[in-house]
Amino acid sequence: MPTYQAPVKDTLFVLNEVLGFERYSNLPGFADASGDMLDAILGEAAKLAENVIQPTNRDGDLEGCVRNADGSVTTPKSFKQAYDQYREGGWMGLAVPAEYGGQGLPYSVNQAVGEYFVSANMALMMYPGLTHGAIAAIHVHGTEEQKNTWLPKMVDGVWTGTMNLTEPHCGTDLGMLRTKAVPNGNGAYKISGQKIFISAGEHDMSDNIVHLVLARAEGSPEGIKGISLFIVPKFVLDAEGNPGKRNGVTCGSIEEKMGIHGNSTCVMNYDDAEGYLIGELNGGMRAMFTMMNEARLGVGAQGLAISEVAYQNAVNYAKDRIQGRSLTGPKAPDKKADPIIVHPDIRRSLMTMKSFNEAGRALMLWTALKSDIAHRSGDDGDRQQADDHLGLMTPIVKGVLTDKGLEHAVMAQQVFGGHGYVEEHGMSQFVRDARIAMIYEGANGIQALDLVGRKLGLNGGRAVQAFFKEVGEFCEENRAVESLAPFTKALKKGLNDLQAATMWLMQNGMKNPDNAGAASTDYMHLFGLVSLGYMWARMVKTAQDRLANGANGSADFYQNKLTTGRFFMERVMPETQAHLARISTGAETMMALPAEAF
Amino acid sequence: MPTYQAPVKDTLFVLNEVLGFERYSNLPGFADASGDMLDAILGEAAKLAENVIQPTNRDGDLEGCVRNADGSVTTPKSFKQAYDQYREGGWMGLAVPAEYGGQGLPYSVNQAVGEYFVSANMALMMYPGLTHGAIAAIHVHGTEEQKNTWLPKMVDGVWTGTMNLTEPHCGTDLGMLRTKAVPNGNGAYKISGQKIFISAGEHDMSDNIVHLVLARAEGSPEGIKGISLFIVPKFVLDAEGNPGKRNGVTCGSIEEKMGIHGNSTCVMNYDDAEGYLIGELNGGMRAMFTMMNEARLGVGAQGLAISEVAYQNAVNYAKDRIQGRSLTGPKAPDKKADPIIVHPDIRRSLMTMKSFNEAGRALMLWTALKSDIAHRSGDDGDRQQADDHLGLMTPIVKGVLTDKGLEHAVMAQQVFGGHGYVEEHGMSQFVRDARIAMIYEGANGIQALDLVGRKLGLNGGRAVQAFFKEVGEFCEENRAVESLAPFTKALKKGLNDLQAATMWLMQNGMKNPDNAGAASTDYMHLFGLVSLGYMWARMVKTAQDRLANGANGSADFYQNKLTTGRFFMERVMPETQAHLARISTGAETMMALPAEAF
Repeated sequence: MPTYQAPVKDTLFVLNEVLGFERYSNLPGFADASGDMLDAILGEAAKLAENVIQPTNRDGDLEGCVRNADGSVTTPKSFKQAYDQYREGGWMGLAVPAEYGGQGLPYSVNQAVGEYFVSANMALMMYPGLTHGAIAAIHVHGTEEQKNTWLPKMVDGVWTGTMNLTEPHCGTDLGMLRTKAVPNGNGAYKISGQKIFISAGEHDMSDNIVHLVLARAEGSPEGIKGISLFIVPKFVLDAEGNPGKRNGVTCGSIEEKMGIHGNSTCVMNYDDAEGYLIGELNGGMRAMFTMMNEARLGVGAQGLAISEVAYQNAVNYAKDRIQGRSLTGPKAPDKKADPIIVHPDIRRSLMTMKSFNEAGRALMLWTALKSDIAHRSGDDGDRQQADDHLGLMTPIVKGVLTDKGLEHAVMAQQVFGGHGYVEEHGMSQFVRDARIAMIYEGANGIQALDLVGRKLGLNGGRAVQAFFKEVGEFCEENRAVESLAPFTKALKKGLNDLQAATMWLMQNGMKNPDNAGAASTDYMHLFGLVSLGYMWARMVKTAQDRLANGANGSADFYQNKLTTGRFFMERVMPETQAHLARISTGAETMMALPAEAF
Repeated sequence: MPTYQAPVKDTLFVLNEVLGFERYSNLPGFADASGDMLDAILGEAAKLAENVIQPTNRDGDLEGCVRNADGSVTTPKSFKQAYDQYREGGWMGLAVPAEYGGQGLPYSVNQAVGEYFVSANMALMMYPGLTHGAIAAIHVHGTEEQKNTWLPKMVDGVWTGTMNLTEPHCGTDLGMLRTKAVPNGNGAYKISGQKIFISAGEHDMSDNIVHLVLARAEGSPEGIKGISLFIVPKFVLDAEGNPGKRNGVTCGSIEEKMGIHGNSTCVMNYDDAEGYLIGELNGGMRAMFTMMNEARLGVGAQGLAISEVAYQNAVNYAKDRIQGRSLTGPKAPDKKADPIIVHPDIRRSLMTMKSFNEAGRALMLWTALKSDIAHRSGDDGDRQQADDHLGLMTPIVKGVLTDKGLEHAVMAQQVFGGHGYVEEHGMSQFVRDARIAMIYEGANGIQALDLVGRKLGLNGGRAVQAFFKEVGEFCEENRAVESLAPFTKALKKGLNDLQAATMWLMQNGMKNPDNAGAASTDYMHLFGLVSLGYMWARMVKTAQDRLANGANGSADFYQNKLTTGRFFMERVMPETQAHLARISTGAETMMALPAEAF
């Protein structure tokens, strides 16, 4: 059976020592999450994840969700009590302002603990996860009345939320959507249509479900310019604001999926359901992106979370399983064989995962911190700079962390040999669960296109130039530090490849947009490598500083950072040159075959 | 529902035009498989695969195998009739000599049609697949009496075979195995012990099951030097050679697995089961490798087969699914959106798979042809050269083709977006099925170690030097052919990287064996890329020759080869430099962390 231990010490290292969390204590909410408070919050989250949530993970996979004849959905037996403990601990509203019942803590802290919860049970955490997105959309786009009506119960977690975008014939291309909204005469709308792939669309863990539904209002234009966002509750509220009569929305079926069996993925049928416009008429796409952006960072965190928990279990197995002898002579001569962690190829896998997880965590938290600054800083310049960064990094965090999430779940499973392929060890579940994160909230190909097609050129390339400047200056400033040289050298090489690829895109993407499309996935991963490499350079610098200053009893911890960072630079960063080489070949060969030749 | 069309034209292109199949007509069996005969054999296999075997694939996944209370195993309902048609078509004995009831055709033809059958239903094909391995072991190591006793019924397929190696505490490290063999006084042995992960160990499709079991005879030394191979039938034969009394071997349970649900993966309990020594006492490892080597090529073919069928379904979906508009303006203006095959990033995936499948097929068939020469040629030099090649390429075909098999199943699934994640489209099954091929018959890390630790240095590096010479000479000879220059240049660059990596291994692997272990997986993939690149260079040369000579009505076919080959050189080959860079960093960083630091 898989186990899990939340990497609290590592999170604290990143937040406090690398990102200098205390420097932001002037931002709203940060003072409540500094020093001992931060330790306590992460510690409580770790306990909940390890002791309450993780034990439900395999149940969820085995039992799955069942749609009953009346359209209700039964979730795995152990889920409700775990969700209730999450809810009662106040985790749903951790980063929501106090006026709506939340704790107003930083979003970055929310992301930090979110990783732990998802490592413990990804499928279960999708119920609150979607609720977070719905809360964000209502918080940003709702009227004061809407906020007061819906948010407190959602923040409390007695009501949950969903996002209803996809229809059978359109996922990425929402301009084609057909769900209709007809004014019902008293300010509300009647919503009709079918939505598919609706995570947490129907279940038995909350008293009401608040669906946020994209639909086309009667008379609105075709395409994405005619789409509006509506609040459609499972139960229409009565005069006291409590769930009243059943609304015209039902779960038609649930999907049989490869993984995340504990999450109910629903076909939702809307049949003259009462709905309330949120945000501006025909402004649905903008409102949707509020949900999507936060959701994308959350999905990126899922990739990291599965990579981490799969890695931990591979490590345990590699230390326990004895098989064969070390190539350099027996390491456990008292046993019939050595533990397989002595074999270099097993270590190659473990180090690859470890060096990614630690940098991926830093990248996730760095980006989340920028989100805090973008939303909470009083300084216009800081806000703009942080918002630029957030927009640029969101597709990278989503696309790269989830691609690596699957890759590493597979890698960890491989460490188990045949035992990884049978379900009882739980490694298959990690692979099957991790797989979806590459697809939902915008398939990773769409993330890559968002990066090269939209984010790169935004405001004259301001965001990407700021990133290049920051990383370039880091390398420059530390050039004289001899102990950092192997790190800054490898980082600079990666940065050069990224800048060359960017230049190539500027010159060739305009000429032929297919060149940008053909480069997009490689470019996203190239950008991801340099971002992760930059995280490593900063972590190593911090670790070296600490070691030079006595290390406060954690010399091993910092020393291991240096080794793991060196592995990343030596073994992972060389991939940047292959990405650049591929990008530079352009779209021609890719587009040359006629469709019938495939 | 997935579909499948056997790539007969492509197989014929490789066998006839690239590999010059007709040049080998002096080898036994080849004359019966040339020209129209080859067309007919492949055509019949295609029909069986497409019309009979493929329709059972999803059934197998959904129904799985069931172990009944009496220890018997029920396979999916549609399997038996499909297996019977396979059997009655004579496919089991295609490459087995006529004296044992086979057709004596080339092994390369067997591999060619094997790809089709596995694309159609991988789980079903494991029943005959394991039988092939058992037939090979008995054929090579059995006495004349053993061959006459067991082979005809196995070749006919009314009896099937298995390989029993793994035990709960040992898979890779067979020296630790505990299954015992005690002489029973009349020349046979009593076998006792437990074997796990036994594919096709118990089922309802054949009248007898011939288990080949590794066990330690009483008094034999510890370790792998004390292991012998035994024939242990499910039913002991009576005086007429028919299945008689039930032997002491039972299926204790079957595994719940990630995929290949249609195959029964059994825990087999041996309790004083009657067994017959095959080959020499304590010579079991050698006999086992006869089974393993053929099985490894078969597993490599599984990787290719799943990559091919997953690709075909991704192509169909990409042509059907409309979503978004081409970056260069609408391509299907009459529709609400363009088919997604217009998007460069979708094409990147399709071309990556296509360019691999075609070269992978060539590599598989080239290696299979070498196996034919090694076993059938009358010329000592030819036999030795072919055997060298076969030994060198076996771990590469197994390791690289199966790693790519999973990668491409995932890539094809991604083309489907959310529809790929739900089980009904069958793309998840391809991923779940493909996953096992990286693990069984020696996990891919073991293949890599076999390559760098054993095959590379064998006979003073004779095999690898011959490969370098052949590829180098191809580049040299074609240097003046302008149309080939982009191909030979890219191939030469890859070859240089491979030679540099080989040199590095020679210099550093001796000094510290961990350097070889640390390099092994990268080296295997680097070698795979150059091998596939060489296949492309040869295919392109052939296509150019044909185009220059009128192309015989297939100009499009050859033209597409040029484009696909160019894609491979531009987009896939650049990876060689990243592999070399990683290899050159050695084992130090990888081995530096103490086990407790993970």
